[in-house]
Amino acid sequence: MSRLVEVTDLILRDAHQSLLATRMSTEDMLGACPDLDRAGYWSLECWGGATYDACIRFLNEDPWERLRTFRRLMPNSRLQMLLRGQNLLGYRHYADEVVDRFCERAAANGIDVFRIFDALNDIRNMERAITAVKKAGKHAQGTVCYTISPVHTVETFVDLALQLQKLGCDSICLKDMAALLKPQPAFDIVRGIKKACGANMPVHVHTHATTGVTLVSLQKAIEAGADMVDTAISSLCLGSGHNPTESLVEMLEGQPYHSRLDLDRIARARRHFDQVKPNYESFMSAYQTVDTRIFKSQIPGGMISNMENQLREQGAGDKLEQVLEEVPKVRQAAGYPPLVTPSSQIVGTQAVFNVLMGTYKVITSEFADLMLGYYGTTAAEKDPDVVQKAQASSDKESITCRPADLLNPEWAVLRSEALELSGCNGSDEDVLTYAMFPATAPKFFSERAQGANSVARPGGQAPVTTQPDAAAQAGEYTEIPEPVRYLVTLGDRTHTVTVEPM
Amino acid sequence: MSRLVEVTDLILRDAHQSLLATRMSTEDMLGACPDLDRAGYWSLECWGGATYDACIRFLNEDPWERLRTFRRLMPNSRLQMLLRGQNLLGYRHYADEVVDRFCERAAANGIDVFRIFDALNDIRNMERAITAVKKAGKHAQGTVCYTISPVHTVETFVDLALQLQKLGCDSICLKDMAALLKPQPAFDIVRGIKKACGANMPVHVHTHATTGVTLVSLQKAIEAGADMVDTAISSLCLGSGHNPTESLVEMLEGQPYHSRLDLDRIARARRHFDQVKPNYESFMSAYQTVDTRIFKSQIPGGMISNMENQLREQGAGDKLEQVLEEVPKVRQAAGYPPLVTPSSQIVGTQAVFNVLMGTYKVITSEFADLMLGYYGTTAAEKDPDVVQKAQASSDKESITCRPADLLNPEWAVLRSEALELSGCNGSDEDVLTYAMFPATAPKFFSERAQGANSVARPGGQAPVTTQPDAAAQAGEYTEIPEPVRYLVTLGDRTHTVTVEPM
Repeated sequence: MSRLVEVTDLILRDAHQSLLATRMSTEDMLGACPDLDRAGYWSLECWGGATYDACIRFLNEDPWERLRTFRRLMPNSRLQMLLRGQNLLGYRHYADEVVDRFCERAAANGIDVFRIFDALNDIRNMERAITAVKKAGKHAQGTVCYTISPVHTVETFVDLALQLQKLGCDSICLKDMAALLKPQPAFDIVRGIKKACGANMPVHVHTHATTGVTLVSLQKAIEAGADMVDTAISSLCLGSGHNPTESLVEMLEGQPYHSRLDLDRIARARRHFDQVKPNYESFMSAYQTVDTRIFKSQIPGGMISNMENQLREQGAGDKLEQVLEEVPKVRQAAGYPPLVTPSSQIVGTQAVFNVLMGTYKVITSEFADLMLGYYGTTAAEKDPDVVQKAQASSDKESITCRPADLLNPEWAVLRSEALELSGCNGSDEDVLTYAMFPATAPKFFSERAQGANSVARPGGQAPVTTQPDAAAQAGEYTEIPEPVRYLVTLGDRTHTVTVEPM
Repeated sequence: MSRLVEVTDLILRDAHQSLLATRMSTEDMLGACPDLDRAGYWSLECWGGATYDACIRFLNEDPWERLRTFRRLMPNSRLQMLLRGQNLLGYRHYADEVVDRFCERAAANGIDVFRIFDALNDIRNMERAITAVKKAGKHAQGTVCYTISPVHTVETFVDLALQLQKLGCDSICLKDMAALLKPQPAFDIVRGIKKACGANMPVHVHTHATTGVTLVSLQKAIEAGADMVDTAISSLCLGSGHNPTESLVEMLEGQPYHSRLDLDRIARARRHFDQVKPNYESFMSAYQTVDTRIFKSQIPGGMISNMENQLREQGAGDKLEQVLEEVPKVRQAAGYPPLVTPSSQIVGTQAVFNVLMGTYKVITSEFADLMLGYYGTTAAEKDPDVVQKAQASSDKESITCRPADLLNPEWAVLRSEALELSGCNGSDEDVLTYAMFPATAPKFFSERAQGANSVARPGGQAPVTTQPDAAAQAGEYTEIPEPVRYLVTLGDRTHTVTVEPM
């Protein structure tokens, strides 16, 4: 008896986010949609993550219009998005009513499957979104972020899956955003989840390819009972991206598993993306090859480039090795958060500061918030000395409640502020754009009517700087094009200055 | 109980042959040798294949001197070479006495492990080399070339392994030169060989990475009992190259298998090759990504580029799809040879001729020889109609004997011819160079004293043409930089003109 293995293709979202700095325009995806729609996928991931931000920041595209276009062109497919729990697609926690509105609108515009995660695996940051998705009648996929630490065991991940099941999730995703998931743990965790949650709970495995080993992990996850796996059509695969869809299908041949994918349609889609890919040459990730250093340093490859840049800007390019050794210590002090946006940037920047200024002499406000519980709870106890320093530095107290419980209702205020902006069309969708990207939305609203900045058209989008930007540098490890932080010392006081691209 | 899995690294031979057109100079490898020597490999593949040809043709290096250098710098390691059976490293079959001399000299200069293969899997083309290696007291590894066809089954490959065992081979290599080996057949064939040859017969698995699936095949081969696997340090991996060594080691973690590799030493070697790799940018294979079309067309990726070039030169660039459909038919007519040098070029060129000139209207002399048994025997019966046409076209009869049985002793003649060349030092090694590369040896002998053309030195090797050469185009699928064939029509007669680089 052969068992069906379902596939989600990432080519419309995470593949170009990881390999082309999220720059692919809707126009360059349209041609492949009819084939993708009929190729036999379980779902097509096509929205969320950094794509919303990239649409309004770089492409002058309305992300909601992109979603409606996908819905129209792929009527037979489940459309899937990546949602950062209480953060939605923005940089902070939002009040529950904003989370509710977002999920309702995303469902109404076409999303069928919401993959909901939290960087710290704090279930309290996911539960409101799960409830909202269920209320909208859609598929809520609860996510377990995979990481490696002395406190993370198979049971840690299985327990989280059980909690997600209790919240009503329709499926569980094991998300390996940094390609750290090796074959044996992939097998053990998937089997553990299946055993704990029951054979009927679908388990979906997401991996990146950076370490070169994760197609074997998908094989082992399938052997352990995984129902769905994530891959990307081979035009945009490997490196900081994902395992190739075609290889997965071929891998199964002769084994007691099969996909229902149509390789002819996938070949046509591949030819389409092969043709548009050169448009994005200047955004291509430098991580096109295999990098297993991640296993040792625990630092995602894209983060290492960022750190090198940060250090060079500070005239300390020779300190990289020291910083690489500091990161695991900072991560330990912070209770072993998974290193994924935003925790990866927060921990990485603090490690740079520790090396340059002395250990915890300067504490960034974000790191203080992380130490004091404002991002949620972590798997291990935090270092009490560092917690004390964070309290002193930030003049804030530790919290143990759900961070969003501290927020007041904010929809009415956000709505009235958005409506004042020139070009805002008054829709809830526009209010959400403003809520998540208050610095970028005004320019986007006022220029939206000019139409998309496609790189594929004359006079269209071009790289603005000769330097690859932060998002390009960060490659797949960045869910958002992150702000760049500088250390500025005036006399004897040191300030953190955050520069965010407009 | 954990089982030891041994590893052969390909970085010194097949990795740069597959990814850098065999151009890496000895000088650029030296710095890594001390770490490679102590990293815990089963062997280091470092000689044979196309490296001999590339040394004298492009690098002005004496291949024997390269071998002695490796021997000196890696005293603790088994040094391994790839040997094309009765072809040695040249373009034709050699008389047995030449095969004997070659194996004796290679052993005396430092080779410990001889991997001996034949493109057609004709054991008669391998047996003399196996005997010669055994006589020299070295490790003879008999090779089973993997291919896919209606007549190739698990039993086909297992039977060949059994025959190789009977000839005295010390181990069996399952060689997947085109990345066609999927996980399930990898498992089945390795288990079959182990069962037939006994658990004590070491099985070594060689794969390329082109189709993106073969690290999973190595995993399954290991589960089936494979003792040794081939990988390459990640500086030169994937694409038409191989799976990364570091990923293989990480893959095994937590599984009931382990390597004895020292990842710190391998990391140092990786840094070395990362540094020299940019010297070879102009030779880099275009096949840096995943290509699963090979499964369908059965045509190695590198061959497709060659064909496109051939067709464009004939003003028939639009005929590629037709040729891709023709290749499997020609291969069937020829009795389903594996497609590897030289059979890949012979079958591919005939397919081009069939499309351009009409089916078997023109038969190349090489294809006629293949059809008439002059390369050896094939797994399936040949098409009798095409055999007849080959006889008519070439005015030759079919043979069923071992092709080398038709050869007269030739060592004395080769020796006296070689000794007449200016710069020949009179050694058996120089005679072998002349024997295998009669067109290239004279120039090499006369210029040898000028020293190596290293790309890494000012005034050193540079790409001679703006077009990538045949070897670069063919990527890993070419064991030799093959001659280019042109079709020249004068009046109503069509001639094949072969142009071989000097």
